[in-house]
Amino acid sequence: MKKDRIYLFDTTLRDGQQTPGIDFSVEDKIAIAGLLDAFGLDYVEGGYPGANPTDTAFFAKKRTGRAKFVAFGMTKRAGISASNDPGLAALLDSKSDAICLVAKSWDYHVRVALGCSNEENLTSIAESVKAVVASGREAMVDCEHFFDGYKANPDYALACATTAYASGARWVVLCDTNGGTQPSEVQAIVGAVIAAGVPGENLGIHAHNDTGQAVANSLAAVEAGVRQIQGTLNGIGERCGNANLVTLIPTLALKEAYAERFSIGIDTEDLTGLTKLAHTFDELLNRSPDHQAPYVGASAFATKAGIHASALLKDPRTYEHVTPESVGNLRKVMVSDQGGKANFINALKLRGITVGKDDPKLDRLIQIVKEREATGYAYEGADASFALLAYRTLGTVPDFFHVESFRVMVERRYDANGQLKTVSEAVVRVIVDGETMMSVAEGHGPVNALDLALRKDLGKFQAEIADLELADYKVRILNGGTEAITRVLIESTDATGARWWTVGVSDNIIDASFQALMDSIVYKLMKNRGEAGRAAAE
Amino acid sequence: MKKDRIYLFDTTLRDGQQTPGIDFSVEDKIAIAGLLDAFGLDYVEGGYPGANPTDTAFFAKKRTGRAKFVAFGMTKRAGISASNDPGLAALLDSKSDAICLVAKSWDYHVRVALGCSNEENLTSIAESVKAVVASGREAMVDCEHFFDGYKANPDYALACATTAYASGARWVVLCDTNGGTQPSEVQAIVGAVIAAGVPGENLGIHAHNDTGQAVANSLAAVEAGVRQIQGTLNGIGERCGNANLVTLIPTLALKEAYAERFSIGIDTEDLTGLTKLAHTFDELLNRSPDHQAPYVGASAFATKAGIHASALLKDPRTYEHVTPESVGNLRKVMVSDQGGKANFINALKLRGITVGKDDPKLDRLIQIVKEREATGYAYEGADASFALLAYRTLGTVPDFFHVESFRVMVERRYDANGQLKTVSEAVVRVIVDGETMMSVAEGHGPVNALDLALRKDLGKFQAEIADLELADYKVRILNGGTEAITRVLIESTDATGARWWTVGVSDNIIDASFQALMDSIVYKLMKNRGEAGRAAAE
Repeated sequence: MKKDRIYLFDTTLRDGQQTPGIDFSVEDKIAIAGLLDAFGLDYVEGGYPGANPTDTAFFAKKRTGRAKFVAFGMTKRAGISASNDPGLAALLDSKSDAICLVAKSWDYHVRVALGCSNEENLTSIAESVKAVVASGREAMVDCEHFFDGYKANPDYALACATTAYASGARWVVLCDTNGGTQPSEVQAIVGAVIAAGVPGENLGIHAHNDTGQAVANSLAAVEAGVRQIQGTLNGIGERCGNANLVTLIPTLALKEAYAERFSIGIDTEDLTGLTKLAHTFDELLNRSPDHQAPYVGASAFATKAGIHASALLKDPRTYEHVTPESVGNLRKVMVSDQGGKANFINALKLRGITVGKDDPKLDRLIQIVKEREATGYAYEGADASFALLAYRTLGTVPDFFHVESFRVMVERRYDANGQLKTVSEAVVRVIVDGETMMSVAEGHGPVNALDLALRKDLGKFQAEIADLELADYKVRILNGGTEAITRVLIESTDATGARWWTVGVSDNIIDASFQALMDSIVYKLMKNRGEAGRAAAE
Repeated sequence: MKKDRIYLFDTTLRDGQQTPGIDFSVEDKIAIAGLLDAFGLDYVEGGYPGANPTDTAFFAKKRTGRAKFVAFGMTKRAGISASNDPGLAALLDSKSDAICLVAKSWDYHVRVALGCSNEENLTSIAESVKAVVASGREAMVDCEHFFDGYKANPDYALACATTAYASGARWVVLCDTNGGTQPSEVQAIVGAVIAAGVPGENLGIHAHNDTGQAVANSLAAVEAGVRQIQGTLNGIGERCGNANLVTLIPTLALKEAYAERFSIGIDTEDLTGLTKLAHTFDELLNRSPDHQAPYVGASAFATKAGIHASALLKDPRTYEHVTPESVGNLRKVMVSDQGGKANFINALKLRGITVGKDDPKLDRLIQIVKEREATGYAYEGADASFALLAYRTLGTVPDFFHVESFRVMVERRYDANGQLKTVSEAVVRVIVDGETMMSVAEGHGPVNALDLALRKDLGKFQAEIADLELADYKVRILNGGTEAITRVLIESTDATGARWWTVGVSDNIIDASFQALMDSIVYKLMKNRGEAGRAAAE
């Protein structure tokens, strides 16, 4: 049976930008467009060129390879011609492959928001679409408020859709702008649009999650004939978010209800990158991934010890609706299992450490990692801290130096000129080869001061760490309040171009930073010693 | 038209307990059962008496008033009589109104997990249900893996359901235990169960969120005839969670697609307590509420878009699928540098501040916001800081108090017992009404110490801020390295249940935190003054 192709349209960079608290820089947009393009999305909507300097700069170049690069904007205003509309001109100036025009399709909004007649709005749709087509680009029309508009005035909503299609739009996208439409309504209304003459293969769905059903509404539309789905990474978007493509993609690709009838532009092998894609995007937003996210959450394939856990190990397939491997996730059974041990042996092997599976030191290392992860450490993102912990548990790490004490002070006061000033100062007392050294430094904030003081004088090791640089510093609060547990991740680099990550956890942000800074320096000293350093540690 | 009654069954205390990271004490369970009972749920499932000491203690007393109090457990084991089964005895000893028996309905699991014949399992179901009915309690049967079981062996799955019903079960609950069933499959299979002889009014649905469709699957089952829905508060539960009752309840009560045909046991007026219920539950779990949660999230009725914001204010109903008031939530129009002048005027209007569009002070406010957002502030996520900035720019904010200086010190050293210890101490010098007060406090880390010192003695204002609490603290590093710009967001709350967000930005994390803490306190003082406070500021 020939499968119908479903086209995936990503609007993370446009509608996703409407998420409270999210603002993308041009650099962010370039990075995200790259991720989407590499993953195999069909369309990447980049923003609204002409509406703000970020989006205009972003559209100065084509930012995708495989995926079609889409600019978003409004249909021309009533009363002027398409060629005289400055908004449309900005769209046509952009380096886009396709243009998505948003058009009102609820007569109430035509009157109140546009202030023009229903007929004028249809003319704007028709002329704008024709202008896009004439420019050689693919035209699509987002019919805003389509479902609510249809309920209020079905004939007019349908007229907007059929006008867009008749004028040459490749896609007519039905938008549930307010997000309150139910799946059964979506199915019925999509049926009415197809009956009015727009073929399903030219229809798209744009759903919002205001009743927790953006994914279900998108799939209901597909069942009714629609062949394009608009959504975002991790379901970000205005209010409760857009349809989550990270959930929809594996559902379309792996669930029998759809996979037998439909195909998408992403191969099954590439689907194994899904968990990484979702987590990389959260990393970029500097937020903690949702543990309970479908398919990609840390808990999505986790079973708590109990009735299911032992049966699960007998035959995981009967307790999992898809395999965790298919989406690049991991099975977790929260009881000690052999799989965990094999994972550790492999992780150590990757770092050049060989350890027998019956070595009691291995059990100790696993126990320490589990205990530490329970208190907030995350070794998955801190390979250098993991390596040091392994060296320390399985062998020895030389006591290069010893920090006897430190003190960090932040003071805000009026200076001699009556200006408010905040000064941060750190004092560190280090012992190297029995000799005590005190260093003091001022910095931009307490962590920077501590970092500078710590690396100011390490005696005979000082020359060795001269090329050590901190590339990134991330703070994550693991639970609420100012007395919460803080996790600090530090990325370091040196003249060889190597990069390594270290972690620290404490209820005190300075303490957590200190741990991560210390690990970074000690790792650098170990690294300088190369195989010899590692051998000493084994 | 007579409406069909939909019964709501809460399993927060039983299946919700399977959520990784969540464990309830007896006291937690008593508090949560009280919340659910007061809100009007029909059934509150409390746990598995006999399986662990917490649940056994919880079932020593009946814990609900209106709601039926439900104990969960397994059907009797094969090979012994119902009266000799210790598990069933513990259930019958519990102070419950109803007993929910979990029964295997997938032949594979009968063989592998129970190790008995298909026929023996049917006998266990029949005899266990009869024992519950004989004890004078309402009996219900959770048919585990029903949908997957039906796909593997439809006759056997149906036999389990019809046996439960024929033996006297009030409810036969169809469970999508692995969470992978799609809405169209749910509808078809529910139809088959009804055709096999179990009336819809005796059927329940238990859905999981592994493809993001637990809500949609529950509603699809209702459309197919089911009349009981099982779910949890905020959708907690094993793996990706259970069906979210906080989303389902307003959808059933307010959305035309259901409200015209169905009724639930919660009055429309009581629905206004929904946002508070959801947030109180998160409070109990010590976690930050999900801002994008349908209906109850802080962003659920928030608009950022320039295009939508001005039309929204003209007639909110056309941009909102339900009113925020109907679920006890609030409308928010957010400010960001993407927004135009109309956006600002509207945002101010919502805060009770009227300003003419030609007022030069408005231009100044817009300029300040844009400048500050360019340096890293994000006012859209910090409504209280925005309000203060507006009050200050457009009017005046009283100088309640003045922080002349502060000093924060973090010291790590060996204490008298040779233990490594990190101590954080803050000293704040505040002037209130010409009088200088010095406060000192120790805390978990420098920010906590500063927070405690700052709120320790504000003279005559101290009593007013006694109920101020910090609910959440977030740090975002805006660019790399330890000398990066840091943005701090603080969420505060007080005894009235109000929540507000403040922001601070600096290259010094202590300074950024100080700004956000100050804004929170001043906003609280302004808020206490109500209209008078606002008037003073205008």
